[in-house]
Amino acid sequence: RERTAALLAHPVFQRFIVGVILLNAATLGLETFPAVVAVHGHLLTAVDHVALYIFAAELVAKIYVERSRFVRDPWNIFDTLIVGVALLPHSGGLSVLRSLRILRALRLLSVVPSLRRVVSALLRAMPGMSSIVLLLGLVLYVAAVMATKLYGDTAPHRFGSLPTSLFTLYQTMTGDDWGNIAREVMTRHPSAWIFFTIFILICTFVVLNLFMAVVVSAMDE
Amino acid sequence: RERTAALLAHPVFQRFIVGVILLNAATLGLETFPAVVAVHGHLLTAVDHVALYIFAAELVAKIYVERSRFVRDPWNIFDTLIVGVALLPHSGGLSVLRSLRILRALRLLSVVPSLRRVVSALLRAMPGMSSIVLLLGLVLYVAAVMATKLYGDTAPHRFGSLPTSLFTLYQTMTGDDWGNIAREVMTRHPSAWIFFTIFILICTFVVLNLFMAVVVSAMDE
Amino acid sequence: RERTAALLAHPVFQRFIVGVILLNAATLGLETFPAVVAVHGHLLTAVDHVALYIFAAELVAKIYVERSRFVRDPWNIFDTLIVGVALLPHSGGLSVLRSLRILRALRLLSVVPSLRRVVSALLRAMPGMSSIVLLLGLVLYVAAVMATKLYGDTAPHRFGSLPTSLFTLYQTMTGDDWGNIAREVMTRHPSAWIFFTIFILICTFVVLNLFMAVVVSAMDE
Amino acid sequence: RERTAALLAHPVFQRFIVGVILLNAATLGLETFPAVVAVHGHLLTAVDHVALYIFAAELVAKIYVERSRFVRDPWNIFDTLIVGVALLPHSGGLSVLRSLRILRALRLLSVVPSLRRVVSALLRAMPGMSSIVLLLGLVLYVAAVMATKLYGDTAPHRFGSLPTSLFTLYQTMTGDDWGNIAREVMTRHPSAWIFFTIFILICTFVVLNLFMAVVVSAMDE
Ligand code: NA
Ligand code: NA
Repeated sequence: RERTAALLAHPVFQRFIVGVILLNAATLGLETFPAVVAVHGHLLTAVDHVALYIFAAELVAKIYVERSRFVRDPWNIFDTLIVGVALLPHSGGLSVLRSLRILRALRLLSVVPSLRRVVSALLRAMPGMSSIVLLLGLVLYVAAVMATKLYGDTAPHRFGSLPTSLFTLYQTMTGDDWGNIAREVMTRHPSAWIFFTIFILICTFVVLNLFMAVVVSAMDE
Repeated sequence: RERTAALLAHPVFQRFIVGVILLNAATLGLETFPAVVAVHGHLLTAVDHVALYIFAAELVAKIYVERSRFVRDPWNIFDTLIVGVALLPHSGGLSVLRSLRILRALRLLSVVPSLRRVVSALLRAMPGMSSIVLLLGLVLYVAAVMATKLYGDTAPHRFGSLPTSLFTLYQTMTGDDWGNIAREVMTRHPSAWIFFTIFILICTFVVLNLFMAVVVSAMDE
Repeated sequence: RERTAALLAHPVFQRFIVGVILLNAATLGLETFPAVVAVHGHLLTAVDHVALYIFAAELVAKIYVERSRFVRDPWNIFDTLIVGVALLPHSGGLSVLRSLRILRALRLLSVVPSLRRVVSALLRAMPGMSSIVLLLGLVLYVAAVMATKLYGDTAPHRFGSLPTSLFTLYQTMTGDDWGNIAREVMTRHPSAWIFFTIFILICTFVVLNLFMAVVVSAMDE
Repeated sequence: RERTAALLAHPVFQRFIVGVILLNAATLGLETFPAVVAVHGHLLTAVDHVALYIFAAELVAKIYVERSRFVRDPWNIFDTLIVGVALLPHSGGLSVLRSLRILRALRLLSVVPSLRRVVSALLRAMPGMSSIVLLLGLVLYVAAVMATKLYGDTAPHRFGSLPTSLFTLYQTMTGDDWGNIAREVMTRHPSAWIFFTIFILICTFVVLNLFMAVVVSAMDE
């Protein structure tokens, strides 16, 4: 066990794993070019399989070394899920599952120390925002229910159902094309500008304060 | 009175109220699905009525307990207004009033402590911004009057009247599709780029400083 | 002179001037509604003239009181310019000059203390940004000359001349509709994505640092 | 050598070089107006050549003075590259190379002290962002491979190949027109909203933290 632990922690082995991740990310990218697949398809598949075996073997070795400690490190769970996706049975039709293989490139996040640090910092910043994100979510839900009731018949492709409204208002929240959406509704409901203006004002104001919270929490550290 | 006060403050009762709010928000959301209403319409209406009775009863109990102190807490006013909306008489045609029932979900803001704290912080941040918001409003009004006079005949659906111009310039301020709006006007008034460029520069500059004010006031706390 | 000075500084007189500004802003806004002009057109014009006389009289009184000190206060220059615009001779055709009358509403900035403070703060923040704004301007000019040379023939309505390119790239800088502009050029120049991507990256990066400069200078105060 | 060094450092010479850069930038701008080229084309070309000779002579003088120290100052490398571009052989067809001549205007960055300081500050801020930018790049690559696999057949002009997907998702990241792109894909893949919503949430969150990093590093200085 000690020799396996030493091997896993060895800088050369770490660099080898980074190399395999990058190579695998490159082959999965090349797989999107039909011309390349036509000529080197077998090679790409082979590299993909070998990379998967290496990742699986690394995980097994880690479980052997760390035993019960393994599940306590969230990065291990993250790696296991990402590698595990590729082991799920998938027929040719499940293109979604096949496309998820590229998530393995995210293993860089757990292997490269500087990326690992950034992601940890991002995750630590999350709790400080949770209340404001919850508030934004509540505002979005309330506005979506209202918009569906009020404008569902007028603009069914925008507000025809609750999920459609949620999507349209999420788009409005990011400021994308909201003027045209509002104008479309306003041809029938001239007072709809009140709804959109208030919704955008509230969202801008809350996001401004989300920002404030992030800066303040960053100061405290 | 003391027993009623103890009941209202009891954690179990608080959690019960949160549960009723969430359930009511869910049924109001489900009401937007015609298929669900066709099958379970009566159930949804029943839940809605019961929730409303519970909220009304809670308010009455609070007034009984707090008496004159009741009106001094702005959260109580907020709750009363939200619940009161549903008690207004409404014929079938007043879909706006009916759609306002979902505002009851905002009662979460007054009941869940973490949301209550966030909203309080947002409201405290407001006075510090009031002057800058007033300035933005003044810039918007002046620009809208000018645009209506100058471009009202050229692009009536954008600047045909003062309210229309206010809406279009508010949209411009958020950066949404302003290039196309300006280009449309510029086909007739080639120098309109001056108006739009200066308007956007001023708004960006003022918003940048609104931001600065928010960060600085956040630092001070 | 002392009695005139006391009158000008009297709170009641100040409030009277604010009232006249607000009333004048309202009548200039009402002038954009043809229906109102048809009925009360003479009244609106009368109020406009009276307001102008009051502002002119106030300025004359101020010059009488402050004499040579008058020109040293930039707010006085600002007020004089704004009032002076209305005194310029204008035929019916000069709609631009007529539309500038609404700028008088900006006199609120010099009269209301809280707005005056905000504007002063904004102006003080300007020198700290001047280098970065100069840099943005230089990047914009260089990119516009390049785009005109490279894409002028392909998309003449976007990059046909230097002023057109400057406008289009200013729009790109604000992130408005840049994807469609780039895609339009890319149908003929597939490598144009390099130009747009680098341009946006540089602008985003510089604006991010403009922001940083603003926050840091705000901290220092 | 000492006299040459004194000449190069003399304020009058510095101002002369700034003048030549501005003049050259202006003539290169004027070159984009066909009417001006038709009348003064020879003059513009002459000024361009003279400016180039002056810049080349300045560089040769600097190399003569600084010798081996010359290559150690990155600003010298920058100037050499910018001037060197114009010396590359180019036939009439290489319009890209010809259009790069305007990059000489960027020599202002190395010559004007205040711009030099701003650019240095920007470059110093870069290392602190590198990890977050790397993370954004990784997210972009992973999302582009997935989108090409999943939506390549549905919307070939958006996600038909890996480079196309990278461009479309970069556009999505800047919030430009993403609603319409998503809606287009969603006509065939109704669940595509999950992909776009998560992608935008992650990008917004990471950019928010990039911002945080910039502010914090600005505080530290
Ligand atoms: Na847009
Ligand atoms: Na936009």
